[in-house]
Formats: sequence, C-alpha cells, structure tokens
Amino acid sequence: MRFARVRTDRGPAPAMWRDEAWAEVDSILVPVPRLTGRTWPVSSALAAPCAPTLIVGMSANGTPEARDVPARSFLKSPRTVIGPRAAILADPAVGALAIEGELAVVIGVESRHLTPQNALDAVLGYTIANDVTAVDQIAGDPTFTHGKNGDGFTPLGPWIETDLDPTSLAIEVAVDGAVVATGSTADLGRAVADVLVYVTSVMTLGPGDIVLTGCPGSTAPISAGQSASIRIAGLGELVNHVTPSSPPRDDDRQESR
Amino acid sequence: MRFARVRTDRGPAPAMWRDEAWAEVDSILVPVPRLTGRTWPVSSALAAPCAPTLIVGMSANGTPEARDVPARSFLKSPRTVIGPRAAILADPAVGALAIEGELAVVIGVESRHLTPQNALDAVLGYTIANDVTAVDQIAGDPTFTHGKNGDGFTPLGPWIETDLDPTSLAIEVAVDGAVVATGSTADLGRAVADVLVYVTSVMTLGPGDIVLTGCPGSTAPISAGQSASIRIAGLGELVNHVTPSSPPRDDDRQESR
Repeated sequence: MRFARVRTDRGPAPAMWRDEAWAEVDSILVPVPRLTGRTWPVSSALAAPCAPTLIVGMSANGTPEARDVPARSFLKSPRTVIGPRAAILADPAVGALAIEGELAVVIGVESRHLTPQNALDAVLGYTIANDVTAVDQIAGDPTFTHGKNGDGFTPLGPWIETDLDPTSLAIEVAVDGAVVATGSTADLGRAVADVLVYVTSVMTLGPGDIVLTGCPGSTAPISAGQSASIRIAGLGELVNHVTPSSPPRDDDRQESR
Repeated sequence: MRFARVRTDRGPAPAMWRDEAWAEVDSILVPVPRLTGRTWPVSSALAAPCAPTLIVGMSANGTPEARDVPARSFLKSPRTVIGPRAAILADPAVGALAIEGELAVVIGVESRHLTPQNALDAVLGYTIANDVTAVDQIAGDPTFTHGKNGDGFTPLGPWIETDLDPTSLAIEVAVDGAVVATGSTADLGRAVADVLVYVTSVMTLGPGDIVLTGCPGSTAPISAGQSASIRIAGLGELVNHVTPSSPPRDDDRQESR
C-alpha cells in the first residue's frame, strides 16, 4: 500500500492510494485503516507523510565498512520535518549546507529490543528523507545539535510505501535538476533490520517514528536559491527548495501563541 | 498559576489549581485556558505536566565557568517522558545510572532567535526535571544518544508554575529519602534567558517544549530498587522509583499496534 497525508484546509489528511486517487482514511497507524469516504485527486499537494514523535539518524552508516565499528546515532527535532515542496531555510549564520538523500524507515508499532528475526515486522513502510546538515557546524558540535536542527532540515515524502524490499534501492540526488550524487542502500554498513535492532537496543520507538538509515554517498552541497531533489527507486521523488531565512525580528515569536 | 495534567481513565486532563482542587481546562497552551467545569481532588495522581514535542538539554551548564565556553546542547526523545511516581527503568545492559535534578523551562509560544530582552516572554512556566543518565554510556557516545534515552529517563513534574523567578532556586536531590546532593540555579553558567537565546539561535522551540537548564551539582548515582526525589524551591517534589527493566521478549513489540 501507499500512504500519504494530503494538505487540506483543516490540516493534513491521512490517505491511501486507491483507484488513481488519494482515499482518506482515519489513520495510517492502525492495523486496518478505515476509509472516510472522502477522496482527493492525484494532483493534491502533500504534507510530510507522517508526524514523528521521534527522529533517529544513523551516524556514519554510509559505507560497508561501517558495520565493523560500533553503531552510533543522533536525534533530530520533530519540528524540523517538512513535506514535499516546502522550504528548507538557509540561515547565513550557520554557514554551508549539504543535502543527504536517505531511505527513511517509518515505524508501525511500539518497539524495544527488536531482534534480527522480528525487526522488519516493526516497519510500517519506507519514505524518502533529506537529512539536511549545516556542515560547518559539525566540527564543534559533537552532539550534532547545531548541524541537524535548522528549520526545514528534515524533508520527508512524498509518500510511504509499505511493500518494498529496502536492501538495494538506488538513490539519486539532484540540485537544480542535475544529478550530482548517487548511491544505493546496498552500501549501508548496517542494513535496515540491523539498524532497527541497534536503535531499539538503546531506546523505544513508536508508531510514526522515523529512522534515517544513513547516507551512502548520496550527498551534495546546496545553497539558498537552489532546488534539492532526492529520488529513491520505488519511492518517487522528494523536491524542496532552499530559501534564505528571514532575519530575526523581535515579534517573530508572537505569531502562534 | 499552577498547571498540571491529572491522570484520568481517558488520558491526562490539563488542569489549573483553583480553590484547593485541580480545575480542568481545555488546554494549558493557550493564552486564556477555559474551564471545562470538571474538577479533580488534590489527591489525584498526576501525569507529566506537558507532552513536549522537543526536549533540549544543556550540556555542561552546571558551573558559573560554563558561561565562558561556547554553549552546547543535546536532544532527548519525547518518549522518555514520565510523570510523578512513574518508573525509571534500569536496563542492566547499559550500566550505572545517575539522576540529575534540573530546572525545566516549559515553552509557551513558537520561538526562534529570542533576545535577552524578550526570552522570558516565551516561557509558559517552570517544572522539575530529572535528567536520568546512563553514565557508563557517555564516554563512547558523543551525541549522548545512548546515555540519555532509556525508558523513563525524563521524569517531569509535579506541575508547572507560571509565576516564579528562576534565578536562584535551591535544588535538593534525595535517594531513598536521604538528601545526597544540593545545588542552586544561581550556579548555572547560563541563566534561563541566556539558555533560551542560545537554543533558539539553533532551532525553533514551540508550545509545550522542554528545555533542561543544566545540573548545578544536583546529581547522584542511583540503582534499581531505589527511589529518586528532586525538590526545587517553589516547585514541590518529583519522586520516581527505579525498577529493573524486564528482559526482552520476542512479543514485546506486538502490544500496541
């Protein structure tokens, strides 16, 4: 199945792909999503396909050699999530940006201490992530907090595929329409099941959470004014533009109380 | 005002303290919470007083000298939040635990690029946090992911006080009823306003988010079977027991799909 969240006036509506349209469902995080009867056309704008409580990213999992060293990971703020076509904000104060095309695992059930045998049972499906990184920040930032949490730094989408073999998917990264990097999930040091065994040895994952599996060479520098595209075989294309962040104003934080 | 969330059969109910009882409100994250008419007795069990989307902890902010080095922070999983009296789980595989009594800032409004002048306007109130840490994990764990994200590792509560001067609050840490460490928010390297200026220079905070301000000596080792108590002047006492985590079972993750 293919799940998405359609942008509507009343917020994102969960939906499944059916009869060449998005058929609204009550939830995608239940064993049997129920149709509401509403449908949305294929041309509908999409939000991020889920709203994770937790985003965990694998560190340095982008080469086969990574499996020979202890696994490491970092957390990203759920407030960094944006959907297709939404803007990645470039703050001049943080310096250079890179995009990282990654396979994202969407968790379906509460999970702790998964085993290699049951790990994939915890997966709802897969989507594309762009793990945007402020690369100039990383050297002085051992926790990655400064490098990974800018506004719009976690584009997700366009949708979730539940029936997909994650073991050898081609990843293509384009800037302004030109392919600038490629990779494959076959080159990840730890494959999806092993990633989930590791992460759930450390913490509890739950429905809708996102695990970023690592960047197998699928990275490129990007600047304000440019467009980032990540394609993963079987998952479509995730496109986001980079725009300069507006300068801080004293009244910026008043808008949404 | 004093806000809490009362445990009820239908989940946590937001409430404000009024006429010696908890008066249910529609939300504590709106400018003027509206009373629903229901009340709960003072003896009600409380959940964590908010459900943060994002938890940011200050690194090494526990001494006055900390203000002379660049500020650093880390993220914690919102899934680690528990309320008063709930259990901190000790997993023998992660080794020794410490409790850290900290003043927690509860954010009221979406906030980015706060200034020293307006930072405190973003604060809804304050509560007590216990930033539980698996201390044996930290050395090999530069992102703090392994050390900070065990189950029940972020007790919060018992309630939120909106009218409190955070600059010089005594913190008392007790294990099994005996005071084992003390500190004061006066010894934090960066005070609350400066912490918020720093964090919002890096990322966006939003309503209900938690900022852990750092641990001014208010830490102690703890083991399974023991009880942790954090007291902060003006905020009451946050008590949680440490219990051994049950061994992993293959069917653990099936329970909540």
